[in-house]
Amino acid sequence: MKLGLDIMGGDFAPKTTVGGAVRALKVLPKEFTLVLFGDRDKIVPLLNEHGVSVDNFEIIHTTEVIEMADAPLKAVSQKPNSSIGLGFKYLKDKKIDAFASNGNTGAMMVGALYSVKAIEGVLRPCLITQVPMETGKTGILLDVGSNADCRPEMLCQFALLGQVYTQYICNTPDPKVGLLNIGEEEEKGNIVAQATHQLLKNHEGINFMGNIEARDLFDGQADVIVCEGFVGNVVLKEAEAFYKLIKRRKINDPYFDRFNYEIYGGSPILGVNSNVLVGHGISNEEATKKPDTPC
Amino acid sequence: MKLGLDIMGGDFAPKTTVGGAVRALKVLPKEFTLVLFGDRDKIVPLLNEHGVSVDNFEIIHTTEVIEMADAPLKAVSQKPNSSIGLGFKYLKDKKIDAFASNGNTGAMMVGALYSVKAIEGVLRPCLITQVPMETGKTGILLDVGSNADCRPEMLCQFALLGQVYTQYICNTPDPKVGLLNIGEEEEKGNIVAQATHQLLKNHEGINFMGNIEARDLFDGQADVIVCEGFVGNVVLKEAEAFYKLIKRRKINDPYFDRFNYEIYGGSPILGVNSNVLVGHGISNEEATKKPDTPC
Repeated sequence: MKLGLDIMGGDFAPKTTVGGAVRALKVLPKEFTLVLFGDRDKIVPLLNEHGVSVDNFEIIHTTEVIEMADAPLKAVSQKPNSSIGLGFKYLKDKKIDAFASNGNTGAMMVGALYSVKAIEGVLRPCLITQVPMETGKTGILLDVGSNADCRPEMLCQFALLGQVYTQYICNTPDPKVGLLNIGEEEEKGNIVAQATHQLLKNHEGINFMGNIEARDLFDGQADVIVCEGFVGNVVLKEAEAFYKLIKRRKINDPYFDRFNYEIYGGSPILGVNSNVLVGHGISNEEATKKPDTPC
Repeated sequence: MKLGLDIMGGDFAPKTTVGGAVRALKVLPKEFTLVLFGDRDKIVPLLNEHGVSVDNFEIIHTTEVIEMADAPLKAVSQKPNSSIGLGFKYLKDKKIDAFASNGNTGAMMVGALYSVKAIEGVLRPCLITQVPMETGKTGILLDVGSNADCRPEMLCQFALLGQVYTQYICNTPDPKVGLLNIGEEEEKGNIVAQATHQLLKNHEGINFMGNIEARDLFDGQADVIVCEGFVGNVVLKEAEAFYKLIKRRKINDPYFDRFNYEIYGGSPILGVNSNVLVGHGISNEEATKKPDTPC
């Protein structure tokens, strides 16, 4: 099995991405090959620093870079020889089985949509984030930014995608789905939330527990929390704000350490025809090493 | 000057509201009279418990109660003899100069709109919350729930209302206005945020600093943070979630204590033709005492 890794993407690339690849090499079973997409002239010296032979990897040399601030659609179409561009070409051609990047999230989403494409029937793929519950469990929140504006039907699909992910990847046999809203009653919320509540309530395949308010986010009431990407991204970044405050105020607490997104592995793009993982831009070597974050 | 107080509204009413009135009595200058709207048979025994004479107050006896879960529009129209109903009648008739309640926020908004009405030209009044900045300052976030769905023009007005409030009530001479968004660049965000960015940027009366991401909410970059009510309410309640976690984990930190919404005074409804204050349902006696929360 071949795992593709974008060496050029991320705030601290290529140093942390090469470092992550070296760490992954040490723990991966022999049947896995790491395929590094990036500038060979940057990769080889870094591997030498680690004292690791180039022969341990496949390197696909790239000549362009998609920057973090690049407009996704433009970047993917105008930089086919970037690490993200070539990574998705390989994924589409089944020359690799998975592709992971700490780079431009929007470009990853566009790349996935244009190469391996959405699963038939899926309106929009989405991105998840892990929600550390105080009970010790980890829930998921989706979408967290790839779909800023959503229709109720999209949110209903996110619920299904999240439920399947939680069942099969997190081994939660009967995950509960909550709709992030500003009140518990079903008539509460904005127009999208009100309509979504009805769709979720009437969907036989969804284990819907009702609305969940942000004040109860970390209580473990819901395993899958659904919201529009705009709101989900705000929730995710407010959690980062609190984690930042906690660190700056020198508070040590093992629970709050679970909000450190530097140490998390990538999050999958749900709803596409392959394995695509997007890591946080600030991921360190250890985070880059991880194939995915355990639930 | 007469200050009206809803005795029946709030999670711990009438005990905390009468207690708050007694506390306020002790600090208010003589020219202020407290007018208590509520069930006289409940108020008098509580005042007796405090050893305070009924003669210190005006009591307006009410026979109906708007519950926290009541649908706002229906409650206000069908319960004219409730404390909120009569409070707004007195406010409209100028028999009181301000009206405060810890009760049903939606009913307070509806009551204000139907009695004293919005200031001419204001599309929708809005609710603010205080944002404790790590710099020691306190910013404001608006709207936080009274307008779940907003048009860009409404958000632009919230920016103006918040700017004026911060200038004149918080004594911040030149407040900076930020738009809560999911990226710094002006093309980021959902459709409403993208359009609002352009309005704010091109409005000569607004001191617009650009987008602000939730991870920077507490850094003090913006004094006035504008968003749709759905998002603002989620942000507010996520902050409550973190405060709850911090208390449960027995972390003591003076900065995080500023997130304790039990101790905050009421928040004004901005954009109406009188002084209307809405307290948190969980307000304690000390919070009820406060006319408003200092910035």
